[in-house]
Amino acid sequence: MTHIDVFAHVLPPRFYEAMKNVEPSIPERYAFFNNPVLTNMELRRSHWDGVTKQVISHVNALPEDYVGPDEAARLCRQGNDELIEMLHANRDMFEAAVLMVPMNNIEEAVRIVREQVASDPDVVGVQVFTRALGKSIADEDFRPLFAALNEVGAPAWLHPVFDLRKPDNNLVFSWEYELSQAMLQMVQAGLFQELPDLKVIVHHAGGMAPFFAGRIDRIMTSDQAADMRKFYVDTAILGNPRALDLAVDFYGIDHVLLGTDAPLGILPAGATKEICAAINDMRVSEADCSAIYSGNYLRLIRKE
Amino acid sequence: MTHIDVFAHVLPPRFYEAMKNVEPSIPERYAFFNNPVLTNMELRRSHWDGVTKQVISHVNALPEDYVGPDEAARLCRQGNDELIEMLHANRDMFEAAVLMVPMNNIEEAVRIVREQVASDPDVVGVQVFTRALGKSIADEDFRPLFAALNEVGAPAWLHPVFDLRKPDNNLVFSWEYELSQAMLQMVQAGLFQELPDLKVIVHHAGGMAPFFAGRIDRIMTSDQAADMRKFYVDTAILGNPRALDLAVDFYGIDHVLLGTDAPLGILPAGATKEICAAINDMRVSEADCSAIYSGNYLRLIRKE
Repeated sequence: MTHIDVFAHVLPPRFYEAMKNVEPSIPERYAFFNNPVLTNMELRRSHWDGVTKQVISHVNALPEDYVGPDEAARLCRQGNDELIEMLHANRDMFEAAVLMVPMNNIEEAVRIVREQVASDPDVVGVQVFTRALGKSIADEDFRPLFAALNEVGAPAWLHPVFDLRKPDNNLVFSWEYELSQAMLQMVQAGLFQELPDLKVIVHHAGGMAPFFAGRIDRIMTSDQAADMRKFYVDTAILGNPRALDLAVDFYGIDHVLLGTDAPLGILPAGATKEICAAINDMRVSEADCSAIYSGNYLRLIRKE
Repeated sequence: MTHIDVFAHVLPPRFYEAMKNVEPSIPERYAFFNNPVLTNMELRRSHWDGVTKQVISHVNALPEDYVGPDEAARLCRQGNDELIEMLHANRDMFEAAVLMVPMNNIEEAVRIVREQVASDPDVVGVQVFTRALGKSIADEDFRPLFAALNEVGAPAWLHPVFDLRKPDNNLVFSWEYELSQAMLQMVQAGLFQELPDLKVIVHHAGGMAPFFAGRIDRIMTSDQAADMRKFYVDTAILGNPRALDLAVDFYGIDHVLLGTDAPLGILPAGATKEICAAINDMRVSEADCSAIYSGNYLRLIRKE
């Protein structure tokens, strides 16, 4: 069975050098960037299962956090070119690329979607983060990016970041909360009403929504509760088959896609094995299992 | 089958008047306090299912938020006396009482546990909130209260409040996050290592822990991950049988107790019917179902 892992990360080495030149403290701030499996593709191959083809995206070394609009555009272009180069050089392991966009230069972000995402068959979407420039991803300033994605039919990949206004962030729960808050804010901002064809793939099985569906259904309007179910989600919760069943219960079987966060999560190269074991242990049919492993992704990016 | 709802609220009317005298804006701040089923027991009885006996606790009109230590002690005493009076006057509907304690007067809080909780068979524990006086409930200042509960063998009932440092609180997800954060902070503070017999009943099915068990097991130490499973949890998530199954998966069948948040959640008198329907739809045996409905509670408070 084909396995396509929709949420896997790399850190293009020349781009990383460029970012370290901009901000030398990055390697200390983000210890996990130093995982060599992010940068060294021969090492990555030595850990690869030979089966799971990865859709690769960047880690959160984000140009807009450090430089102005023009330089951010230039760094994103450099990072994306190198990401695509890594894809082409490792076609055995990699399925497609998800680009970064400069959130402080929305004109350029829109151009990347309209020109590069829309035309390059190896590029399937862009990655956005739950917050950017101190604002929610649901902020109106970022709306043209989602409008462009809606227009070309490509998904946004939604990745969490800490909300730096909060003093008690931690790796156990805070990213999951930030994903949930961003989803809520996107729905409350009417994103899916304004852009009915918008597709958003949420990391970590769609945050808190499946477990707290009762609150969604009782507190939000019925239109908003329906919009909360429009997100697509991955399986990157480090196992837990019953939780994955619950994600299917909430989002629907056609909205759950294999995603692992490789090579992060479990050292040295990620939790692919553990996550695939959990998927195999789900209470779904063989056809549904196959949809999670690749069918849903292929349909989502319209390559099937 | 006996049903005991471990998490139900009342608002004793004379105590509420006393609190409004202290702070007249309380009814505007907390609109749900105006639900008459919280204060009017005849009205409450007209909505009662005749089966589910409620363990009653206060809502979060908390003296320590408005007055000094002595006055807080006096108000808590008044609120608790009236709570017990309501229990005695409505024994058909109510099973037992959970007291409030003044968090700015820990000496008095400890006294309430040692004298009143330990000796009155109608009083089964005290309610604490995820934060108090701008600090985490895991703060060392509050440790003597947990030590006293540990000593007398009575549980703490853990209820969420918003963390007012955070600018994006909402009713859909924030209470669930605050419960999860408080649990994490209690475990990381070594509460269960220091007080091995401590029992804590967490509202809303134990927050985010069941869905994100993989993160707990991979990020926390194995001792901490084991401690995260020591919490007892209720079923107050407004339905969602697959989520309740997942809570059993994480906490164990003997740690899940019927709790509804009545009369809140679904107007006018709470979600008891919806929650019992979800419990009946869980993938558990009849004996396990019965444990959730009452057996686990009776064992927990040592009345069986």
